[in-house]
Amino acid sequence: MRFKFPLMAIGLEVAMIILFGLFVQYETDQNILQPPSSSNSTDVDRFIHLYPLFQDVHVMIFVGFGFLMTFLKKYGFSSVGINLLIAALGLQWGTLVQGILHSHGQKIHIGIKNMINADFSTATVLISFGAVLGKISPLQMLIMTIIEIAVFAGNEHLVAEIFMATDIGASMTIHAFGAYFGLAVAGVLYRPGLRRGHVNEESVYHSDLFAMIGTLFLWIFWPSFNSAIAEAGNKQYRAMVNTYFSLAACVLTAYAFSSLVEHRGKLDMVHIQNATLAGGVAVGTCADMEIHPYVSMIIGSVAGMVSVLGFKFLTPVFATKLRIHDTCGVHNLHGLPGVVGGLAGIVAVTLGASDMSTPAMQAAALGSSIVTAIAGGLIAGPQVERT
Amino acid sequence: MRFKFPLMAIGLEVAMIILFGLFVQYETDQNILQPPSSSNSTDVDRFIHLYPLFQDVHVMIFVGFGFLMTFLKKYGFSSVGINLLIAALGLQWGTLVQGILHSHGQKIHIGIKNMINADFSTATVLISFGAVLGKISPLQMLIMTIIEIAVFAGNEHLVAEIFMATDIGASMTIHAFGAYFGLAVAGVLYRPGLRRGHVNEESVYHSDLFAMIGTLFLWIFWPSFNSAIAEAGNKQYRAMVNTYFSLAACVLTAYAFSSLVEHRGKLDMVHIQNATLAGGVAVGTCADMEIHPYVSMIIGSVAGMVSVLGFKFLTPVFATKLRIHDTCGVHNLHGLPGVVGGLAGIVAVTLGASDMSTPAMQAAALGSSIVTAIAGGLIAGPQVERT
Amino acid sequence: MRFKFPLMAIGLEVAMIILFGLFVQYETDQNILQPPSSSNSTDVDRFIHLYPLFQDVHVMIFVGFGFLMTFLKKYGFSSVGINLLIAALGLQWGTLVQGILHSHGQKIHIGIKNMINADFSTATVLISFGAVLGKISPLQMLIMTIIEIAVFAGNEHLVAEIFMATDIGASMTIHAFGAYFGLAVAGVLYRPGLRRGHVNEESVYHSDLFAMIGTLFLWIFWPSFNSAIAEAGNKQYRAMVNTYFSLAACVLTAYAFSSLVEHRGKLDMVHIQNATLAGGVAVGTCADMEIHPYVSMIIGSVAGMVSVLGFKFLTPVFATKLRIHDTCGVHNLHGLPGVVGGLAGIVAVTLGASDMSTPAMQAAALGSSIVTAIAGGLIAGPQVERT
Repeated sequence: MRFKFPLMAIGLEVAMIILFGLFVQYETDQNILQPPSSSNSTDVDRFIHLYPLFQDVHVMIFVGFGFLMTFLKKYGFSSVGINLLIAALGLQWGTLVQGILHSHGQKIHIGIKNMINADFSTATVLISFGAVLGKISPLQMLIMTIIEIAVFAGNEHLVAEIFMATDIGASMTIHAFGAYFGLAVAGVLYRPGLRRGHVNEESVYHSDLFAMIGTLFLWIFWPSFNSAIAEAGNKQYRAMVNTYFSLAACVLTAYAFSSLVEHRGKLDMVHIQNATLAGGVAVGTCADMEIHPYVSMIIGSVAGMVSVLGFKFLTPVFATKLRIHDTCGVHNLHGLPGVVGGLAGIVAVTLGASDMSTPAMQAAALGSSIVTAIAGGLIAGPQVERT
Repeated sequence: MRFKFPLMAIGLEVAMIILFGLFVQYETDQNILQPPSSSNSTDVDRFIHLYPLFQDVHVMIFVGFGFLMTFLKKYGFSSVGINLLIAALGLQWGTLVQGILHSHGQKIHIGIKNMINADFSTATVLISFGAVLGKISPLQMLIMTIIEIAVFAGNEHLVAEIFMATDIGASMTIHAFGAYFGLAVAGVLYRPGLRRGHVNEESVYHSDLFAMIGTLFLWIFWPSFNSAIAEAGNKQYRAMVNTYFSLAACVLTAYAFSSLVEHRGKLDMVHIQNATLAGGVAVGTCADMEIHPYVSMIIGSVAGMVSVLGFKFLTPVFATKLRIHDTCGVHNLHGLPGVVGGLAGIVAVTLGASDMSTPAMQAAALGSSIVTAIAGGLIAGPQVERT
Repeated sequence: MRFKFPLMAIGLEVAMIILFGLFVQYETDQNILQPPSSSNSTDVDRFIHLYPLFQDVHVMIFVGFGFLMTFLKKYGFSSVGINLLIAALGLQWGTLVQGILHSHGQKIHIGIKNMINADFSTATVLISFGAVLGKISPLQMLIMTIIEIAVFAGNEHLVAEIFMATDIGASMTIHAFGAYFGLAVAGVLYRPGLRRGHVNEESVYHSDLFAMIGTLFLWIFWPSFNSAIAEAGNKQYRAMVNTYFSLAACVLTAYAFSSLVEHRGKLDMVHIQNATLAGGVAVGTCADMEIHPYVSMIIGSVAGMVSVLGFKFLTPVFATKLRIHDTCGVHNLHGLPGVVGGLAGIVAVTLGASDMSTPAMQAAALGSSIVTAIAGGLIAGPQVERT
């Protein structure tokens, strides 16, 4: 069907415009109805304070995720190009779905936090995209984006509003969720005859350097990712500091274990591109808690190690035994470190690092994120396949 | 003339230093003469609040424009290298010309807004550079930079101070102006025998990926471009929100129309690199107005569509019928979307989205920007050719 | 020794975690013990104000330095990959060493300035790395990082606390220091038979474009580097403005002299990649002083010229006569311009641009930075060689 993709893209954009016309307003529209107060000016101040953090996250979504996936020599265009398409659709849809869940039937008032959360919701789909890159068309990605963000917003609502769990850097609700959703879809799309895919599954020198652009911008701005929607003041400050040191520690163990498991101690570029980021994922859940900087370094160290071991030993098993082909290894960058983050959160809350949550709430959030993701992926997979 | 370029570059820099010595001061030099007041500390606060927006614009100018033009396999060095040269000269000259027009004979006091406006003034030349890339030497670009920024500053003064029109994101005064100035110069420089240029006018796989670095950083930071000099508070906030959603909508129509007009529905990298940005250009004029988010999405959607159609159908006509060879297609990225932006501004003001301007003022601003640009380019062209 | 690198990396990370556990706390831990006051909230405000500057510096360290060194066709992976490793170790070690010197035996309280200073301390090693790239293994770089940052922190303490000199952009303490330390190590590692290194010492088209990513992000964010730890208000503002114009002026003289000294006036990519940054280095020492914008442009112009002449005439002499092979030419980008910066600082203080220092203090700081760097490098070199 020659015109299926353009008509679907135009149709979705028209739908977004209509839904925005019906449900979305500027945050200030509301403020006009309220009596003028000093808190009003504080909101505007808050906007300009959070805007740099928003832009850091924005760079991660479009440059970070986009270039991280360019390491395959044949999929450079696909990864950067489809990444932009997914994220552009996803941020509109995410604004609507998250907004409707939070506003309880009232109009959605767009503030800086809505824009940050809209970017976050696209991250989920971009993570899943890493598992299905090379097996899926742009048209299929549009369908998957719509389904996945709806399921994501539902799970996030469950975790934050019903379980009342805390997950400030979204180790569970974005990283683990995105990875397991993508793996489930990849399992549905698996084809035994899809062997020719393996010919294209190689990197060349320059494609690996392009991927490092993605890695580095993700690495640099991860403290902003984990702190962007944290409570202003000490919590936000701790989220930045903990993520900064967790990532630094993670680099050393990732390099060390890459050298340990590879032939003759050579460093593997795939590990350097991915496992160095696991510390940002894993510290996410307890980033804003009083866990002490050295604990965030332990979390980062463990994540770097787990991620390299996942690439070396788990990914081959997934492909051969479970018939799940994980193109970019998202299970090792987002799945396992996300679970490590969720477990670290349970331990941290048990030890009293936060009085906002209980270990049971945290465990429920981790379980819900994984189960909802797999169920969502298994439901979405056949829809995507059929398209 | 072997030494013409270095001597011209040194001569221009010496002239800049002398003019700065005569006309430029720190903003604080002035404040010292004023009685100390609380507004003084507010200015400093404002500086640190606007600095991140300045840096976003700075990235757009040097990385965004620089890498966007690397898509041609033979002009990667030229585009990034000359881009840096033009922008470095342009920001010094722009500081002087804009400052002299605004300060009415007094000393120019450099604040953060001067630096943002200096960067803006270089954008005009960088847009025009896209139309003449491959036809022009570094020496010729120095001449063109000096002339174009002087004309730009004159037109901007006319639009803002005489017509009192509003154009916060500079759809008309930077984008349409830069495009039509560049096209006029390209028309003057046209050579029928310049066929060998077409051999170099190809992209290769990696040059297209380098260009995506430029595209993505422009896309990401465009909300900062359109809001950097907006009035603090609600207007600045609306400029960010409107640009964010306009760009997202633009991506979907750009992809859809690229697929519609290309053979067998394939996506064209040139459209992805350029037309996805048209939403940022087109929403510029009314970015800070109360136009409602869904209206900015309509503007972005239209701009994405118009831009792709321009690349497909107008650019070939320009090259063959009008004898204007537009190397990077700046007419489709900056010219047409800039006009769309100017027209949207007229409609928005007519419908009451802003009480700062009238439809007639806006129409005068659009006309002035196009006419001044073409006249300026036709005057500058022969000067450039002669050099 | 197959396992030497991974065991060393793991051992160092374990040591860092133990030392952080013993000596490091959140800044807020301390504040809890203090009576609540309005200055407390100001600290938090300051955190969120400085965070964008911190992120700019962070981009310079990881993307800027990392990609700047990718210009060699065979060392792209090494430069980006080892850059990340060094910086991740260095920022942890720098936090400790600088913190212990400043806190006089008390616990180190991590604030935003500690994170900025930690990034700064890694810059020293990354500069030195440019001199030894291709001659040194990742294992050897771990050793060099530990030694160099300790010596750097000692010299910085001497300069700031004992000599009471001012060097806000660290022309002397980071740039000159890093360059001369690296050159001393390169001298120790020199091998007459190391001629095969020269075969790999070539750039290719795309490796030069990758290097421009590094150049541009360094160039763009240098105003943040020179102002990040400046006193809030006028001094910080001047550091931004002076650096902005110094860099712009530097580009013009760098291009002009590159064209002057090259065959047939062609521009040399190595000069464009490096000498255009010399203005940021050289204006560092007096960036926050009242030197007038045109003076910062003179400093930048001189630095651009000196840097190109260094690449053309000094680097070959260093390699043949002094037996010091400077892979990336750090002497021309950081060494000479750092000395220019130190000298400019002496002159500026003599002329009364700052009342915080005296010419003698500034001269002592410059001398100390060079002597300590060379002595440190000569001591570190054999340790590195032996590893």
